[in-house]
Amino acid sequence: MNICNREGGRCAAMALVCLTDFEQYAKEHLSKATWDYYAAGADECCTRDDNLLAYKRIRLRPRVLRDVSVSDTRTTVQGAEIGFPVGVAPTAFHCLAWHEGEVATARATEALNTCYISSTYSTCSVEEIVAAAPGGYRWFQLYVYRDRELSEQMVRRVEALGYRALVLTVDVPFTGKRRDDIRNRFRLPPHLKLKNFEGLPQAAAEDYGIPSNTLDPSISWKDIHWLQSITQLPIIIKGILTKEDAELAVEHGVQGIIVSNHGGRQLDGGPATIDALTEIVDAVQGRMEVYLDGGIRTGSDVLKALALGAKCVFIGRPAVWGLAYKGEDGLREVLQILHDEFRLSMALSGCRNVAEINRNLIQCSKL
Amino acid sequence: MNICNREGGRCAAMALVCLTDFEQYAKEHLSKATWDYYAAGADECCTRDDNLLAYKRIRLRPRVLRDVSVSDTRTTVQGAEIGFPVGVAPTAFHCLAWHEGEVATARATEALNTCYISSTYSTCSVEEIVAAAPGGYRWFQLYVYRDRELSEQMVRRVEALGYRALVLTVDVPFTGKRRDDIRNRFRLPPHLKLKNFEGLPQAAAEDYGIPSNTLDPSISWKDIHWLQSITQLPIIIKGILTKEDAELAVEHGVQGIIVSNHGGRQLDGGPATIDALTEIVDAVQGRMEVYLDGGIRTGSDVLKALALGAKCVFIGRPAVWGLAYKGEDGLREVLQILHDEFRLSMALSGCRNVAEINRNLIQCSKL
Amino acid sequence: MNICNREGGRCAAMALVCLTDFEQYAKEHLSKATWDYYAAGADECCTRDDNLLAYKRIRLRPRVLRDVSVSDTRTTVQGAEIGFPVGVAPTAFHCLAWHEGEVATARATEALNTCYISSTYSTCSVEEIVAAAPGGYRWFQLYVYRDRELSEQMVRRVEALGYRALVLTVDVPFTGKRRDDIRNRFRLPPHLKLKNFEGLPQAAAEDYGIPSNTLDPSISWKDIHWLQSITQLPIIIKGILTKEDAELAVEHGVQGIIVSNHGGRQLDGGPATIDALTEIVDAVQGRMEVYLDGGIRTGSDVLKALALGAKCVFIGRPAVWGLAYKGEDGLREVLQILHDEFRLSMALSGCRNVAEINRNLIQCSKL
Amino acid sequence: MNICNREGGRCAAMALVCLTDFEQYAKEHLSKATWDYYAAGADECCTRDDNLLAYKRIRLRPRVLRDVSVSDTRTTVQGAEIGFPVGVAPTAFHCLAWHEGEVATARATEALNTCYISSTYSTCSVEEIVAAAPGGYRWFQLYVYRDRELSEQMVRRVEALGYRALVLTVDVPFTGKRRDDIRNRFRLPPHLKLKNFEGLPQAAAEDYGIPSNTLDPSISWKDIHWLQSITQLPIIIKGILTKEDAELAVEHGVQGIIVSNHGGRQLDGGPATIDALTEIVDAVQGRMEVYLDGGIRTGSDVLKALALGAKCVFIGRPAVWGLAYKGEDGLREVLQILHDEFRLSMALSGCRNVAEINRNLIQCSKL
Repeated sequence: MNICNREGGRCAAMALVCLTDFEQYAKEHLSKATWDYYAAGADECCTRDDNLLAYKRIRLRPRVLRDVSVSDTRTTVQGAEIGFPVGVAPTAFHCLAWHEGEVATARATEALNTCYISSTYSTCSVEEIVAAAPGGYRWFQLYVYRDRELSEQMVRRVEALGYRALVLTVDVPFTGKRRDDIRNRFRLPPHLKLKNFEGLPQAAAEDYGIPSNTLDPSISWKDIHWLQSITQLPIIIKGILTKEDAELAVEHGVQGIIVSNHGGRQLDGGPATIDALTEIVDAVQGRMEVYLDGGIRTGSDVLKALALGAKCVFIGRPAVWGLAYKGEDGLREVLQILHDEFRLSMALSGCRNVAEINRNLIQCSKL
Repeated sequence: MNICNREGGRCAAMALVCLTDFEQYAKEHLSKATWDYYAAGADECCTRDDNLLAYKRIRLRPRVLRDVSVSDTRTTVQGAEIGFPVGVAPTAFHCLAWHEGEVATARATEALNTCYISSTYSTCSVEEIVAAAPGGYRWFQLYVYRDRELSEQMVRRVEALGYRALVLTVDVPFTGKRRDDIRNRFRLPPHLKLKNFEGLPQAAAEDYGIPSNTLDPSISWKDIHWLQSITQLPIIIKGILTKEDAELAVEHGVQGIIVSNHGGRQLDGGPATIDALTEIVDAVQGRMEVYLDGGIRTGSDVLKALALGAKCVFIGRPAVWGLAYKGEDGLREVLQILHDEFRLSMALSGCRNVAEINRNLIQCSKL
Repeated sequence: MNICNREGGRCAAMALVCLTDFEQYAKEHLSKATWDYYAAGADECCTRDDNLLAYKRIRLRPRVLRDVSVSDTRTTVQGAEIGFPVGVAPTAFHCLAWHEGEVATARATEALNTCYISSTYSTCSVEEIVAAAPGGYRWFQLYVYRDRELSEQMVRRVEALGYRALVLTVDVPFTGKRRDDIRNRFRLPPHLKLKNFEGLPQAAAEDYGIPSNTLDPSISWKDIHWLQSITQLPIIIKGILTKEDAELAVEHGVQGIIVSNHGGRQLDGGPATIDALTEIVDAVQGRMEVYLDGGIRTGSDVLKALALGAKCVFIGRPAVWGLAYKGEDGLREVLQILHDEFRLSMALSGCRNVAEINRNLIQCSKL
Repeated sequence: MNICNREGGRCAAMALVCLTDFEQYAKEHLSKATWDYYAAGADECCTRDDNLLAYKRIRLRPRVLRDVSVSDTRTTVQGAEIGFPVGVAPTAFHCLAWHEGEVATARATEALNTCYISSTYSTCSVEEIVAAAPGGYRWFQLYVYRDRELSEQMVRRVEALGYRALVLTVDVPFTGKRRDDIRNRFRLPPHLKLKNFEGLPQAAAEDYGIPSNTLDPSISWKDIHWLQSITQLPIIIKGILTKEDAELAVEHGVQGIIVSNHGGRQLDGGPATIDALTEIVDAVQGRMEVYLDGGIRTGSDVLKALALGAKCVFIGRPAVWGLAYKGEDGLREVLQILHDEFRLSMALSGCRNVAEINRNLIQCSKL
């Protein structure tokens, strides 16, 4: 289906009305290798696909006659107010999707007043990102490198730039097996750079594509202490899927976790994030904030995640689809659609603000 | 599949034997925008589709050797006897489906001796409806407008016309997001009017299509008291899906509720109505009548709904398909099919009358 | 797929190896109206289809190392020994499938030494059936007519002919709604007769097809007493699906029941027969024999039914497919396949004879 | 999809990245009869297909931050160390898949340092197998023949050749009904021989294909004692699916069992092996080693089987696909892929060695 005809690089025709319209557009307009890279899941893609299917198994219990004339979608993350509980998850290589890359992402998230977790593997530098959207609220996604010095340099740099939290990705001791990337021998095209590494000794190794041997698979809870010792920023652990690890995160004094399976790109066979959320929220009992990414496609998905205890959700692939459509404007449209759909779902469920969203909204026997 | 060949505007060939035959006919003969409008569900249409699928998950437990030589399908709603427990739910714009519009609907429902809930958004006026079928049993579907005066005028008007109950729709504080309607930029064609608003101040705004900003999203249980203060008619709340709201309805002294998700056109992700019915019936414990709409396609669906405690069910889209086929005659056929199928299902389950239909007919372990 | 090429009316090529091969053959070689008639289920065919699907949900627990060098498939029904626990259920109009009709059925069932329940609506007379296979073991399927005299005449006639039991069908107070039959205006072709009615006063009415107004919908448990008063034959009630009715059958002193939903041709929405079996067997506690029909397609289906408590199963449509293929020889092949598959399934489950088949063979947590 | 172009009998193009790529290759390059033979399941193939589907229903609970920089996939079977817990199950006729047959299998399994269970029905002799890979670790798959002398000769022969255990297949008292093999009249081509039988009196009978009447269906637990009386080798029983038989195996003093349904080729309707595993492991309580075959297609399948208590798993069809692709090299690739995927799944689940894999990795509520 050809959703629109491009005229002079712009889509003059039909509006895209939902996130899957953007997905379709991106599939049609990105190169196959790029599309495959973003779409990829590990192995048989069971977990990637279940991230979406799991939402369809959850039934809401909407309430009526509650005066929803005023509805307020604002919430806070780490004490900062954002316009609605949907941020942008870290994804790599935005220049593959849109020539301006992460600069566009930064502007769109600033415009919608939400949280942008910028990826270590950006094709714009953190400095460019901050310059493009100086008022934006941002967290920085971090890996622990074999060379701790490199990680530490990065931390100091983003602290100085005003990033507000560190998001430590812990589910990539090794890269998941994404069959199409292997078949395509996916590499970052030579004209794109991992800008955050420019001028650093490792840069050469990274030049040609996906980093492989730089991440440290020995990463453990000790590294959380080390990270705490070098920064004052809140630390958020991304990639937790069990109550046991959530409990350990609390015990190690971090400020939040993102329930994530890396979009189904790492371990295939793990749970959908929305399915893992409940046991984690129950274990955490409010001692830190719990976020979630994976599978969010509509405003009612957001509502379900919040009803089950997520403080905020993050979108990965849909943000890239927005960029692929029209850069900053495209991502603004994607975020605006989720905002509007979430506000509408709240109202149709009888919720006037996010504080009123709770587990009573969920039909538990169907879980 | 071309079910029949039209000759001179009439279908001369093959009879339509079940409701899905009418659906197929309507899909082939209505304009795409009109078909899409009636078929639409919110967002991903999960709830719309689950309304039907849920019936297929329910198993009956038929009894035999019970002398079903006489079977009586009559029941009462709000004390009035109707020929069988299937009424016509409020749906908008019948002139889109058949040139005579709601006048045909009124005549068909009168002929079958059942209840017709006429929609506020009719393309015939309530006066025309009553004139066309003076002996018909009718309820009036009402919204609460920002301008309470307008709602009150409407109430007085239908009271005077002999409508027998008010059905207050409470699940549209805002209109659900129906993707195809947005893509089609669906509007009521200029030659059709919302006849109930003619001559009223708001009429101009409504002229061109779907009302949007007139419904009051602040509607709350207080408005039930207000409505009770201006009318003697029984009040039935349409759009309740939880036991909590059913309990509140009882407490507020209304005469009935319709378990409805608006045909899956409002909140996507809510329960199928037949799945929500049981908890509501259990909470209500007979203190008011509980009706249901959504997903009824066969007589055994009716039987299941009654076995789970509905006093009567209402059909929405199937009534429109009947109109699209042959106006009054088409809707009569649709209703007659449901009547016959329901009577047959009763007999094949060992029920001689609706009083004998109860929860023992349902295999609970499969719910 | 064209399974074989006919030469001079005979299939010279490939052997059919399983029952679905026969189904495919029949679908290709019978007229559409005849195929539709036998394939028909009521309404949306949920129950018809679930009859088969339900077997696929049941998992066996095979035992090993049990010396299955000798395996004995024999069993008894009503005290008579048959070669294996698969009989032929009553189905109408065998001449539609094969020119010799029920005569072929009688010969094939005699050859395989199993039970043939001949249908009231046969296109050969009971006298012709008995003459064709004088040594066969047969039961007679009976309806209760408005004219009890007619039923009584039929009983006396089959008693005199040596039929060994009466199978009273109780699930047809009215005929189920089979959409394709209505669309096809299905009638018995004029050259075929309901031979059992020839010479009787009602014959004229039946001449043109399916009897409609002759069955008595007032049939009730009282008629069981009446039937017992006019015959010494064992009475088996066909069409029971609940423990309540099974209990009533025991209390009324009948000799057996067939758990049946009429192949899904009567009430749509009722349970698969294999799903209904357990509660019935548990209620009956061995006080009479419990049989089953519906959905049997392989020997392991037979094994599952026996493991869940059926004394014997009966095949309906597969017998007709066998006739459609090659008359007596075709049905012999169908029965032989089931015999062989059942024997093999027994051996592969560690059962040496039918007495060793019990509920331990079933993985209950999967039910 | 044509995955690669062959040049001079070798695939010069694209690498195969996962086991299903090998399946696709084999399907395209083997003769239909050979493909059908290996792909075959009994009857309707429910059990064959469920072997795979069952893994997809199991969800892992991955742990993070556990220092997986060193991961050790080694384990032991019967006291011998192997490189990773995936061996090659016995499958017949490897010369059908690759001209060198079992010689290639022996070399590949030796190269990967894992266990090869060579089949009685090999198209290379056990002597050729041992000569080809003298350092390989091997078990011998055995049937009990009507002529016990023949079985005993085979036992003595493989003992002398250094085979390390006997794997007694107990689920073939008779051959399962594989429809396509019957349709294809599958026979071993005349140029291939069952080399293990050459020179033996039975050889002639076997010459033309699948042995049928030689296996002894009277096999029982007594034969275990007999087998123990003639050998010092550990005895492993292959084909157990219930806790009852597992308990009997322990009581009879065997050294291990393989939970197997013969790849779904024997009894259709039995459980997926991974579904049967838990009750068996719980019954055995470590008193002997429990292995499993059936449905393994990825490294995370291996991880799930070990988490549920299997000591080692074995692959059947995937090994044949590897042979079909490139003989020894093809099978090495298949095994290497599983090795790498298993190691990665371990690391991504937080397991450093096989001892750390336990049932906490499994989300039990989803079983």
